[in-house]
Amino acid sequence: MNRMVPAVSADVPIVLVFSGHDPTGGAGLVADSEAIAACGGWAMTIPTALTVQNCRNVQAVAPVSGSQIRAMANALEDLPVAAIKVGLIASIDSLLAVMEIIRQRPGVPVIVDPVLKASGGAELSDAELVDTFCELLLPQVDIVTPNRYELARLAGPDSTDDTQRATALLHRGCQAVLVTGTDDPVPGVAVSHVMHTLHRPHGDRQWQWPRLAGSYHGSGCTLAAALAARLAIGEGVVSACEQAQAFTWQALKRGWQPGKDQYLPRRLWQLPNTSFTIPFTAV
Amino acid sequence: MNRMVPAVSADVPIVLVFSGHDPTGGAGLVADSEAIAACGGWAMTIPTALTVQNCRNVQAVAPVSGSQIRAMANALEDLPVAAIKVGLIASIDSLLAVMEIIRQRPGVPVIVDPVLKASGGAELSDAELVDTFCELLLPQVDIVTPNRYELARLAGPDSTDDTQRATALLHRGCQAVLVTGTDDPVPGVAVSHVMHTLHRPHGDRQWQWPRLAGSYHGSGCTLAAALAARLAIGEGVVSACEQAQAFTWQALKRGWQPGKDQYLPRRLWQLPNTSFTIPFTAV
Repeated sequence: MNRMVPAVSADVPIVLVFSGHDPTGGAGLVADSEAIAACGGWAMTIPTALTVQNCRNVQAVAPVSGSQIRAMANALEDLPVAAIKVGLIASIDSLLAVMEIIRQRPGVPVIVDPVLKASGGAELSDAELVDTFCELLLPQVDIVTPNRYELARLAGPDSTDDTQRATALLHRGCQAVLVTGTDDPVPGVAVSHVMHTLHRPHGDRQWQWPRLAGSYHGSGCTLAAALAARLAIGEGVVSACEQAQAFTWQALKRGWQPGKDQYLPRRLWQLPNTSFTIPFTAV
Repeated sequence: MNRMVPAVSADVPIVLVFSGHDPTGGAGLVADSEAIAACGGWAMTIPTALTVQNCRNVQAVAPVSGSQIRAMANALEDLPVAAIKVGLIASIDSLLAVMEIIRQRPGVPVIVDPVLKASGGAELSDAELVDTFCELLLPQVDIVTPNRYELARLAGPDSTDDTQRATALLHRGCQAVLVTGTDDPVPGVAVSHVMHTLHRPHGDRQWQWPRLAGSYHGSGCTLAAALAARLAIGEGVVSACEQAQAFTWQALKRGWQPGKDQYLPRRLWQLPNTSFTIPFTAV
């Protein structure tokens, strides 16, 4: 018997993802999977919500129940997880389930993209959910990746600038805040550029990159998932933030526009356009 | 103002996918998305069911309602679709919704992977669902991709060999049947090889390829999704079948084993293991 043995490589770092599902593939758990694969990890995805949406806006969000989320995650409990990425959380019930699973994986870096609003403008969260998110989830988070709108909502009305707002989040107990300045430009930054800022207790770090024209569907998911994967493969925080931004910028730059609405990031642009070798015989 | 314009390439063929979601990423809609991307298309995925599973077996299947499936698909109605791929259908309600959407896209090739049983052995379908599938969906299908077990269940007890069974399916109105001989070897084929057969009204075509050791989680999803993508990019049926098999074989050969259970296909093996170029300035 001449059986071939496949290559065994058990060293693909698993990123456990809690995200909504977006049928367009621009955002949500499919987007996360792509970004994580392209950045060297393997995504295992637990849907937190099913959404009805297209490349214009989100029409409906149906949260997945906490008990379903727990069951899906518990079935994977034997597997090693190198990072956890949290995206859309659409109910307190599902938030509590996600937190419970995070607590079962102590020491695993947790990256949270606080999805409060769709890029088309639809609100995806209410005040009670935001409060619970800040009180209970933030203290367990290694890096949270809000845009400036989300930062302001999470920090509340008492802070007056981004640094104060980020500091408020750090005081909640999260380890780092990566604020993206794409949608709502940072004051003082040229309109031709975008500035992202990493806030940590011992100091800030900033990156500026050329602004891309157009509106994108899934840029926040892409950034946070790429960041989770880079941490999962063992990169340090600053390098992981840098690589995740570079990856996201490249994927957006190659974005494509189905119809006339938002662009979809092309996260797998590095795939060759190829035919596959045929190791078998047509008979 | 110096704004960069992203590349616009509206020519990525969209494959509309109806599949279950598998948290492991080995099978289901994430697997489909990867295979479709690697074969030149863009997947838009409508979940038909959420599943609780790991790399051993499926523990639970929760069908998504027909009304949710319709809403998700209707939100995408403006977009051109180049192929439709159908995987796990876990209820008659969702089957009827999928059929309705297929009818709204006349002329689009429909590829159906009849997922009746998980690769770990769990039954995913009952007799009533199989009957409804054969009566109502099969006549709308361009290519159905059963393994030998699924072929026998779909064809019923009256046929005695694969050719008769495939002919019974062709008589139901589907255009082609690609029977995979991996799980349940074809009589007369050496155990070191696997034979797949494409049955069409005007004749058969067969391929033999070296058998891989190990058990895989998601090989059927991978094959059918790759086939849908190759048809979506304009390949003919025989060439698309050949390319989809070659792609699947390569992805399985590079499979990896998280834990001690089934291997997961690595469909994105062509991605370089790379760092990303940084087109911006750290400040």
